[in-house]
Amino acid sequence: MARTAKSPHIPSIGELDRNAGPLGRQLAQKLREAVRGGDIKPGELLPSTRALAKSLGVARGTVVEAFEQLQAEGFLDSRPGASTRVALSLAGTQRTPSGPRKGSMRGKQPPLPSPASAFAQVARQFMPLPPVPFAISVPVGPAAPGLVWRRLGNRIRSHGKGAPDGYGDPQGVLPLRKAIADYVRRSRSVHCEPEQIIVTTGTQQGLYLACLVLLGSEDTAWVEDPAYRGITAILETLEPKGRMVRVPVDAEGMDIEAGLRLQPDARAAFVTPSHQYPLGMPMSMARRNALLHWARSNAAWVVEDDYDSELRYAGHPFPSLQGLDPDRVIYLGTFSKILFPSLRLGYAIVPPRLVDAFCGARALLDRHPPSADQHVLSAFIGEGHLDRHIRRIRGVYAECRTQLSQILEDVLPSDLAWLQPSDQGMHSVLWLAPHIDDEAVAIEAARAGVAVRPLSPMCAQNNRRSGLVLGLGAFPTEQIMSAAKRLAAIIAAASSPPTPQARKRAGLAMRIRGPSTLL
Amino acid sequence: MARTAKSPHIPSIGELDRNAGPLGRQLAQKLREAVRGGDIKPGELLPSTRALAKSLGVARGTVVEAFEQLQAEGFLDSRPGASTRVALSLAGTQRTPSGPRKGSMRGKQPPLPSPASAFAQVARQFMPLPPVPFAISVPVGPAAPGLVWRRLGNRIRSHGKGAPDGYGDPQGVLPLRKAIADYVRRSRSVHCEPEQIIVTTGTQQGLYLACLVLLGSEDTAWVEDPAYRGITAILETLEPKGRMVRVPVDAEGMDIEAGLRLQPDARAAFVTPSHQYPLGMPMSMARRNALLHWARSNAAWVVEDDYDSELRYAGHPFPSLQGLDPDRVIYLGTFSKILFPSLRLGYAIVPPRLVDAFCGARALLDRHPPSADQHVLSAFIGEGHLDRHIRRIRGVYAECRTQLSQILEDVLPSDLAWLQPSDQGMHSVLWLAPHIDDEAVAIEAARAGVAVRPLSPMCAQNNRRSGLVLGLGAFPTEQIMSAAKRLAAIIAAASSPPTPQARKRAGLAMRIRGPSTLL
Repeated sequence: MARTAKSPHIPSIGELDRNAGPLGRQLAQKLREAVRGGDIKPGELLPSTRALAKSLGVARGTVVEAFEQLQAEGFLDSRPGASTRVALSLAGTQRTPSGPRKGSMRGKQPPLPSPASAFAQVARQFMPLPPVPFAISVPVGPAAPGLVWRRLGNRIRSHGKGAPDGYGDPQGVLPLRKAIADYVRRSRSVHCEPEQIIVTTGTQQGLYLACLVLLGSEDTAWVEDPAYRGITAILETLEPKGRMVRVPVDAEGMDIEAGLRLQPDARAAFVTPSHQYPLGMPMSMARRNALLHWARSNAAWVVEDDYDSELRYAGHPFPSLQGLDPDRVIYLGTFSKILFPSLRLGYAIVPPRLVDAFCGARALLDRHPPSADQHVLSAFIGEGHLDRHIRRIRGVYAECRTQLSQILEDVLPSDLAWLQPSDQGMHSVLWLAPHIDDEAVAIEAARAGVAVRPLSPMCAQNNRRSGLVLGLGAFPTEQIMSAAKRLAAIIAAASSPPTPQARKRAGLAMRIRGPSTLL
Repeated sequence: MARTAKSPHIPSIGELDRNAGPLGRQLAQKLREAVRGGDIKPGELLPSTRALAKSLGVARGTVVEAFEQLQAEGFLDSRPGASTRVALSLAGTQRTPSGPRKGSMRGKQPPLPSPASAFAQVARQFMPLPPVPFAISVPVGPAAPGLVWRRLGNRIRSHGKGAPDGYGDPQGVLPLRKAIADYVRRSRSVHCEPEQIIVTTGTQQGLYLACLVLLGSEDTAWVEDPAYRGITAILETLEPKGRMVRVPVDAEGMDIEAGLRLQPDARAAFVTPSHQYPLGMPMSMARRNALLHWARSNAAWVVEDDYDSELRYAGHPFPSLQGLDPDRVIYLGTFSKILFPSLRLGYAIVPPRLVDAFCGARALLDRHPPSADQHVLSAFIGEGHLDRHIRRIRGVYAECRTQLSQILEDVLPSDLAWLQPSDQGMHSVLWLAPHIDDEAVAIEAARAGVAVRPLSPMCAQNNRRSGLVLGLGAFPTEQIMSAAKRLAAIIAAASSPPTPQARKRAGLAMRIRGPSTLL
């Protein structure tokens, strides 16, 4: 044995650096590394604290502190009156001397877990778009609630509410639930009490909760075709797989007859009745009634995703489906669209008998919503700011919509791309001629600084349609005009057979980022 | 037919109230209700707008607006030049006249979905404790970061960061990820880059993400026995069920040999190596090495829940398990314990190859963390407030711990209840004599204004042990003393055979709230 208790020389310890933090801690770390690197072996005696302190030029107490820490960790063994040894229990655990010092075993990577690749694909599709036209829900310019929100927040926090606090209710704070109940009753004809409201971090969490609570392992669910990717991706990844039944949408919304043919005994239907996502039409009254009739006859539940009904520009928003059958409809609302997405606050309104189950599922996902902004939002609604803000942005987005239609009509090749008419919401669908690859257009657009989501990934595999989802944003006119022109050029180019270079480039982009992004 | 286009009289419309909001909207709502209530039937002609306006005493434009809205909704049919009818497609959808007006079908409630009861039970167990001794993680008195946090927040928000914003990165904002990487590298010997960090809403979300990403439908996972209820409840409810293998914990932490006997080919192990939850011991170095050795040989992953290692009162916190094998360990940290739970910010540090998968799963759960507080927290760490705060609360909680031990030793019947020694963290385990029902004690304690979590629900079914988890909090001494005395009395009473009245009362409480609560 080269080193003994008499030899205080352990080369890998080197010198301690008085400017790099507590010396005892540095020494402990160096000793750990020396053991792991094989410089000191299990069972070997260490120098005495006195000898090591002397050789390192530090106080003996420093070495004692390091040894005590390492004994507590099981790195070192020492018995009263005896010397200190590297613990024998560490035998066989060191790295080979030639092994990497950090990130051990890098050469022998473990295989990826089986769910990883599906989630990685989802990550690419949910990559946020940059704040340029035609990203959705970008609170810029006149659409942003900035100053009022900030001042109100400072005031609320200074009065104790919204101050640092302990664990909270999975359901959310009561003042916010009361404010939401008032708001949806008067604006959406939702029948509810604050006790039925679960404050969520937005529609996405509401959809996840609904899937967890409503669907047993044998249960299937109707989902619109096309639909929000946020719901289809949940059902694609949630075990057991294969429980999603895509039901086509026509001019009246989800085709209930088709659902009855495809899977009459589904346990739940996920719908966007106020403003079908992404196509934009409301669900007709006849379809609403047919849907509820089916749900009643089949002990099924309806999940109403009411993500942007506030932004209807002609007439009033449709009353909610929930108001027609509050015992059977789970109503999901969000402040992401009308206020701002980065707030991450929304709500699920559920039949009283499901409240506990939603709270439990929510506790498992993330315990409860952060408290401070709940108090700010509750005051924002209670003091009338939300109603004023909605009135204002309704005008703002109505103008944006008119402007966008005109600009697109002017610059787009009308045989290749045309807008789906719609009179509400914060986005429009731009249909593309069927031979145009919308995912390739979206990738090229991103490269040209234009943010669009392709429509085809929102469609069922056997029913892919080519189109783009364009968000309305209060961007300056010249910015919109410029983006529209670039988009028009890309669509025109995508319509002609690509050159080999372009094909190569697109293939490369796909490999790097995946089929870039959709909502 | 009783009413025709010539008769403007629809009794259920009654009078419009000029003080109750826009008249057109009121009229539309009343017409909807009249149709749904059966007062007007599908196919029936409505009065002309002129006649109805006259009979109601409103402007004709008001009626036109209401009709247009109802036509858009599919309630009414009208063709140019013809009269307006209730849509025939509504046939068969009205309520029977004697039916309830709201919450239709209340008499015939749908059966609850199959996952609901398990989640409802979880909800009862996760009910937050009131801020009284011995609730955990209550940022009161000297342990609260209040003023600094608020001032810093106001400053950050006034400079644009943390202002209302669009959709963000599922991974969290980069400045916070950088601050976290610096912090865990120097304080926890974690090897990581900001690119490996996913900002979560706390440990609970980190655990959920790890389960989703790491476990395929055939995969099992080792979980400590006893363990944090947050992980066992996830694995109990996640489909397919039956994939959790409970591995006993002894004085050195998880018994890896036992795990090897029980399920050698598990895909992941969930451990609390710095401070076993709830028992409080660190995992020995030999066990750490054995765990990683098993993981390497079996292509398994280790999830290290490092929920409160900052609060070690003797020596330094143990270095992380992650630092020993960064390619195989998922490290979970949180600011809930050292700052405050209501902030809901934590982090998962994952091997680079798993980052995309975690981001995708995270996007499906709730898109991304709220942005404003991420910027505040990033400044809080970057400006040195976090280190100062930790140094301060380490002293505060060390005192709390000493004080609590002394008080409990003084007031508790030592044959019925004794503290598990521990020198770190924000909670202690109080063992109870085996014949005492800890869940009943917790219920009685709650009734007496004392907050404790029972230990037995944290144990595997076949290995239930009686005890209580007591949180340390900076409550005033007299409050702790008083709570300890009440708790002592309850434990003493629980040790004697209950009177019939007490048995009845306890049974009632169980039916009302379930076996109240644990962490």
